Amino acid sequence: MSKKLMGACVFAQSGGPTAVINASAYGVIKTALESPEITKVYGAAHGITGILDGILYDMAKEDPYELRLLLNTPSAAFGSCRHKMPDPEKDDRDYIRILEVFKKFDIRYFFYNGGNDSMDTCKKISDFMAKSGYECRIIGVPKTIDNDLVGTDHCPGYGSAAKYVATSIAELYKDINVYNIGMIAVVEIMGRHAGWLTGASALAGLAGTSPDLIYLPEIPFDIESFFKDVESIYNAKNNCFIAVSEGIRYADGTFVAESTPSATDGFGHAQLGGLAAVLSGMIKQRTGAKVRSIELSLLQRCAAHIASQADINESYLAGESAVLHAVAGESGKMVAFTREADSAGGYRCGITLQPLSVSANSEKTVPREWINESGTYVTQEFIDYALPLIQGENSRVIENGLPRFANLKKILI
Amino acid sequence: MSKKLMGACVFAQSGGPTAVINASAYGVIKTALESPEITKVYGAAHGITGILDGILYDMAKEDPYELRLLLNTPSAAFGSCRHKMPDPEKDDRDYIRILEVFKKFDIRYFFYNGGNDSMDTCKKISDFMAKSGYECRIIGVPKTIDNDLVGTDHCPGYGSAAKYVATSIAELYKDINVYNIGMIAVVEIMGRHAGWLTGASALAGLAGTSPDLIYLPEIPFDIESFFKDVESIYNAKNNCFIAVSEGIRYADGTFVAESTPSATDGFGHAQLGGLAAVLSGMIKQRTGAKVRSIELSLLQRCAAHIASQADINESYLAGESAVLHAVAGESGKMVAFTREADSAGGYRCGITLQPLSVSANSEKTVPREWINESGTYVTQEFIDYALPLIQGENSRVIENGLPRFANLKKILI
Repeated sequence: MSKKLMGACVFAQSGGPTAVINASAYGVIKTALESPEITKVYGAAHGITGILDGILYDMAKEDPYELRLLLNTPSAAFGSCRHKMPDPEKDDRDYIRILEVFKKFDIRYFFYNGGNDSMDTCKKISDFMAKSGYECRIIGVPKTIDNDLVGTDHCPGYGSAAKYVATSIAELYKDINVYNIGMIAVVEIMGRHAGWLTGASALAGLAGTSPDLIYLPEIPFDIESFFKDVESIYNAKNNCFIAVSEGIRYADGTFVAESTPSATDGFGHAQLGGLAAVLSGMIKQRTGAKVRSIELSLLQRCAAHIASQADINESYLAGESAVLHAVAGESGKMVAFTREADSAGGYRCGITLQPLSVSANSEKTVPREWINESGTYVTQEFIDYALPLIQGENSRVIENGLPRFANLKKILI
Repeated sequence: MSKKLMGACVFAQSGGPTAVINASAYGVIKTALESPEITKVYGAAHGITGILDGILYDMAKEDPYELRLLLNTPSAAFGSCRHKMPDPEKDDRDYIRILEVFKKFDIRYFFYNGGNDSMDTCKKISDFMAKSGYECRIIGVPKTIDNDLVGTDHCPGYGSAAKYVATSIAELYKDINVYNIGMIAVVEIMGRHAGWLTGASALAGLAGTSPDLIYLPEIPFDIESFFKDVESIYNAKNNCFIAVSEGIRYADGTFVAESTPSATDGFGHAQLGGLAAVLSGMIKQRTGAKVRSIELSLLQRCAAHIASQADINESYLAGESAVLHAVAGESGKMVAFTREADSAGGYRCGITLQPLSVSANSEKTVPREWINESGTYVTQEFIDYALPLIQGENSRVIENGLPRFANLKKILI
């Protein structure tokens, strides 16, 4: 057990938001507010940039009821950022600034909620603080609908996005098949390098509404095989329902969606989108069939109304665990999930810690053996893996038939 | 009171499906199965084409539990069609065929669930049966997410689509505003000639997440005013959230979505996608801002998971009322909703009948006085009108974290 460390904590959110990232925020904030070692609880505006700019909100001044509503409020309530921290060996100004802010407000705990880029940021700051001799415990809290973080069984945010995808695919399947005319539908799902979310479309099969074909970025995309697969199904049953990841690439590595020079985000990642329309155009030209393209777009990452209660609970747990572990002396780690069996042999989520280096800047993709041989569907192993994560209907607060989101005062310190 | 008419009934679904058209189906089927006058209850496959082809299912052979699941099963469970019935004066073959089928199966009741085209179909068939001296009572059951049927306060299907739109807009608003960079978002909502559904985006304002600008097809679209409005808001607050109907047209009547001079990428290739993509491209070119386009697409009409319970109840009621009125002697009418006050002065839905001719082939648009002067938002009257229709969280059956849809046997007669 490490020595007791008294001081303030700061929490920040980063990267693409999810339907439940605020549930992790609530887990951190509530647990930190209740921790005797933590003297002040601050939320930073727009991730690490809020720390750099000293824009910090005092969480003790928030109404507890409103804070609790964070459990069902989508997107990052404190704002997000895509600020890329430089290599401190080359440019340490950001790190010096963060150290100044930490010292000024006696911040001894830093909880950063994000994906692999954010874990990299945590690691760099953690290393810098250690080098500077400033005692500060830093714990990463994972989140990503992409589910691509290494070192954790799954990621907070994935289950809710997967539930949205599976439910929407089930409903769209019913709609697409309503007419007595031939129809091909292409549904585009997020996931730049990993097919976890697109694979979740297969869960709709449990509602009897499975896609016919599922294409993940893990498998090089071959346009001729694709046409052959689509035509074969379309000719046999007069319709074809295709789920496809935005990140599918040809064998040479180019994204299928990349027909135009697109803007890049702050990390130099190509901004993808429009793949469904591109593929639909190609299918239409090839088959002459009626083709419908649907992009689930941002809805899949912000649909709190259909967030899985399992995911909300686990996201809260991730935030809570980060604080409890930090107070107990841990630092330079990321909270991670393990898959345990409950007393009845069912699914139970366990908590562990991973070194930040495990998750920083690497990506976990869908194992090849969880994708069928032809690369056009996921296996039962995949379904068994994903299904427990979409369980539970959330108990959000409704007012006027609409979601009641958290209304924070955000009082600057 | 008309004389008692014994015989079979047939029910069919037509036009674009909704999240609750099957709730009306259940209202018809359950009530018909319980009506002593109705000897057999048939469901026709794919609307009127199922009657023309004699593809009829025996509803008495369905499991009552599965039938009940129709309340929460989206899209048309019996299949839909877009068959346009010819003018019987010019080509009466379809009508003669329908008469044959009605006679063959002793069909004395016909319930057709659809929009204004379907009411026109009902009217033509009703007139033909009367002319032929074949006694058959025909009642139209309204449905359309567009809410554009004349003669009814609102349409079954609208409330659920409006709830989906308002909820999704509220969630998207949170997502779009998450970064500390400027952003303009364009969300495209269905409604080719009427702005009822796009106007429902304003309901998100009750969750504190209102769009900045709302463009309906009722107001001629002026591109320069549009740019001015968007830029003014974007310059003032660094973001702008726009809800736009797919059906907006320039003053000369051409759809904005179809006039795509600016909708080319850097290489002069036509940009794929709908109106949101077209407008986004134009805004990006004009402002240089980061722009995101989102098309709610088919999801808005099939999202049974967020269907309003008020809409489900009323859709059921519409189907039930059609049967009760027909058995009582009515024919050649459409079930319509009236807006009543309940004992507490709140909203209550009443039922009336309208001649089919009232709704056939005409469209009810949003009154000019329910749109603000500049044509960029709806008024409080609109919000007061739409708000009661999105109330109530539905109590759908969930299995495996997924919706449990009706699984009908569809036993042919």
